Amino acid sequence: MQLTNVREHNLGTVLNTLAASETPLSRAALAQATELTKPTVSRLIDELLAAGFLIEHAPTRAAGAAGGRPSTPVSIASAQVVALGASVGADHVSVNMIDMRRQIIASAETEVTRAPSPRDAVVLIADLAAELLAATPHTRTSGICVSVPGRLAPDGRSVRSAPNLDWAEAPLAELLEGAPGLEGLDVSIENDARLVAETEVLNRRGEGFVLVYGETGIGGALVIDGEIQRGTHGWGGEIGHLCLDPQGPACRCGRRGCLEAYASYWALAAQAGHQGLIADFFATLDGAARAQAAEQIGTQLGLALSHVLNIADLPTVVLGGYFRELAADITPLIEAQLRAHALTGEAESVAVETTTAQPRPSLAGAALRAIQPVFDAPAEWIRRFDA
Amino acid sequence: MQLTNVREHNLGTVLNTLAASETPLSRAALAQATELTKPTVSRLIDELLAAGFLIEHAPTRAAGAAGGRPSTPVSIASAQVVALGASVGADHVSVNMIDMRRQIIASAETEVTRAPSPRDAVVLIADLAAELLAATPHTRTSGICVSVPGRLAPDGRSVRSAPNLDWAEAPLAELLEGAPGLEGLDVSIENDARLVAETEVLNRRGEGFVLVYGETGIGGALVIDGEIQRGTHGWGGEIGHLCLDPQGPACRCGRRGCLEAYASYWALAAQAGHQGLIADFFATLDGAARAQAAEQIGTQLGLALSHVLNIADLPTVVLGGYFRELAADITPLIEAQLRAHALTGEAESVAVETTTAQPRPSLAGAALRAIQPVFDAPAEWIRRFDA
Repeated sequence: MQLTNVREHNLGTVLNTLAASETPLSRAALAQATELTKPTVSRLIDELLAAGFLIEHAPTRAAGAAGGRPSTPVSIASAQVVALGASVGADHVSVNMIDMRRQIIASAETEVTRAPSPRDAVVLIADLAAELLAATPHTRTSGICVSVPGRLAPDGRSVRSAPNLDWAEAPLAELLEGAPGLEGLDVSIENDARLVAETEVLNRRGEGFVLVYGETGIGGALVIDGEIQRGTHGWGGEIGHLCLDPQGPACRCGRRGCLEAYASYWALAAQAGHQGLIADFFATLDGAARAQAAEQIGTQLGLALSHVLNIADLPTVVLGGYFRELAADITPLIEAQLRAHALTGEAESVAVETTTAQPRPSLAGAALRAIQPVFDAPAEWIRRFDA
Repeated sequence: MQLTNVREHNLGTVLNTLAASETPLSRAALAQATELTKPTVSRLIDELLAAGFLIEHAPTRAAGAAGGRPSTPVSIASAQVVALGASVGADHVSVNMIDMRRQIIASAETEVTRAPSPRDAVVLIADLAAELLAATPHTRTSGICVSVPGRLAPDGRSVRSAPNLDWAEAPLAELLEGAPGLEGLDVSIENDARLVAETEVLNRRGEGFVLVYGETGIGGALVIDGEIQRGTHGWGGEIGHLCLDPQGPACRCGRRGCLEAYASYWALAAQAGHQGLIADFFATLDGAARAQAAEQIGTQLGLALSHVLNIADLPTVVLGGYFRELAADITPLIEAQLRAHALTGEAESVAVETTTAQPRPSLAGAALRAIQPVFDAPAEWIRRFDA
């Protein structure tokens, strides 16, 4: 590592350790936790204090160390450096604000009656962001990340297709960068299922699980020991395109018999002749139609999940998106499929759970993503904030 | 960590670093590579030298450091501390010897005309082991690991079932411990597919791949960034029991439509009315029968592999066992299935390769497994060897 990288790395280590701690930490405790020397830790803390990233607490004297020097614990400053997360759906635009303790400290939402265009979505996001930034005390804002229910272009700057919003080739990052009130912020956009996965990883620290996320399509993530397995091309966890029957129904991806062709909203809506919002579709299903949809979703989802468990032997399945809403209906069907087709189902030890963050898990993930660069390169952000 | 564990850990780190290095390393280089202090490294090396695990090379002076003290590089001693690997098949019993450089330094094999009983296998193994130990210079032997083409009991001491050997509930570890010539050695037994995976991991350091291994049944391993993903119950990589069709043929495991029920030797042999050795079966297949078997194996294996790639997005498929022997026949069929059903197949970037160690990859894995405890707990082994 070059010297500047070592400094970035060490600053990030101290910040991450403090962010993960529930109590303020002394320099000595930080040195022990980070395996850095005490002089190094002291120098890093002075730098972070000067930048306003940390605050010092009242000096304390360790129990039984009456003669020793008192220690001055530090913690992450609340509501100083913040970032914004946003989420665009067919029925809402939401923005929230996160600080460096990784706490959501404010949020605002606008309901819409139909999916906004990319341009309208950006106006609504900028308005909500301005409202939050004006109303919430803070000193610096690092960036904004917008969650989109769609597939991004490989450069991560535009939305290739978001069928539920009726978006295609929308240059979202460019539009956001030009929006009044968002000047100077780092802008990023991300697929909603990925952000839900990141939120779950934070809420299930160190665990292994498979996430399946029902939206227009079906997203997913394979998480082993707290790490999202992105794979060689970034296509790890593409559970929606597991082929359940090579002679099955046609999928949007051009293949046949993918899980998506059975259990995604687009497939179910096409089958039922429904047009409109996902929420409307599932809300308006009557008893028999709901049972039929649940049967189809639960059975095929369970078969696909049995593949994941036979390959990766994970202890937990996490249902997100509308799979979460239908959890009571589909969980018994999923469990039956796991018993039938997964070795781990035989052990009866797979837990079928739902996403932990509510009501908009991808929104929390967007905010986390937006604040993350400050942890990854604190020295660079100290420079940028000072400029 | 307790102090003894820290010492074990540090000794193991030094040994592993030296074993992975192609050249001898100075104490300074080792301190840098292991991030241990130079005094700590010096003390550890003295301990390992005294135990005969390392040798010292001629002092060298770094280029351009004319005034500096010369350094005395060290490396792992060849053929001092050794371990034995063994493999039992329906047509052979093999034993090899590995040293702490993880080099196979000797091997011996007995061909058999029919599968040996567990008791006969142990006699043959002990004879070959005695022959190798007598003929090959070494000072200490840590243990022996025997590879078996079958499923072990959960305690890892007996073979629950090895259909190709016609073994059931064979107390193999106990028999080995009582065998003349093997007294005092640590005895372990392991499933052959697992040992092949460990060999591949060593030969493909840091890589990601999925291994499928054709034997009586079908074994496999999911390897991400050079780590075998064993999962919660140790059932990670159980590709043989991916359900390809819930209404498919019955599998030995009690389920329906598993990959094993289409592409394993037991399924193909039952279909063809064949009894006897795997090698005989594939060797005696004529053109049309071979093409038909390859069609069935390649198509179903390719579909199962497409599931693995959609979930884990790995760059490489590795074929082992009789899948390796049939690689020329089945690879085009596998590739066609990956193109049809895997997102990564679309990228045309999945390499279909074969296991690297030959002729008996599980034998190499057994030897590696047998020497590994010395790396895991060097201090304990120094004590045992001194006793």
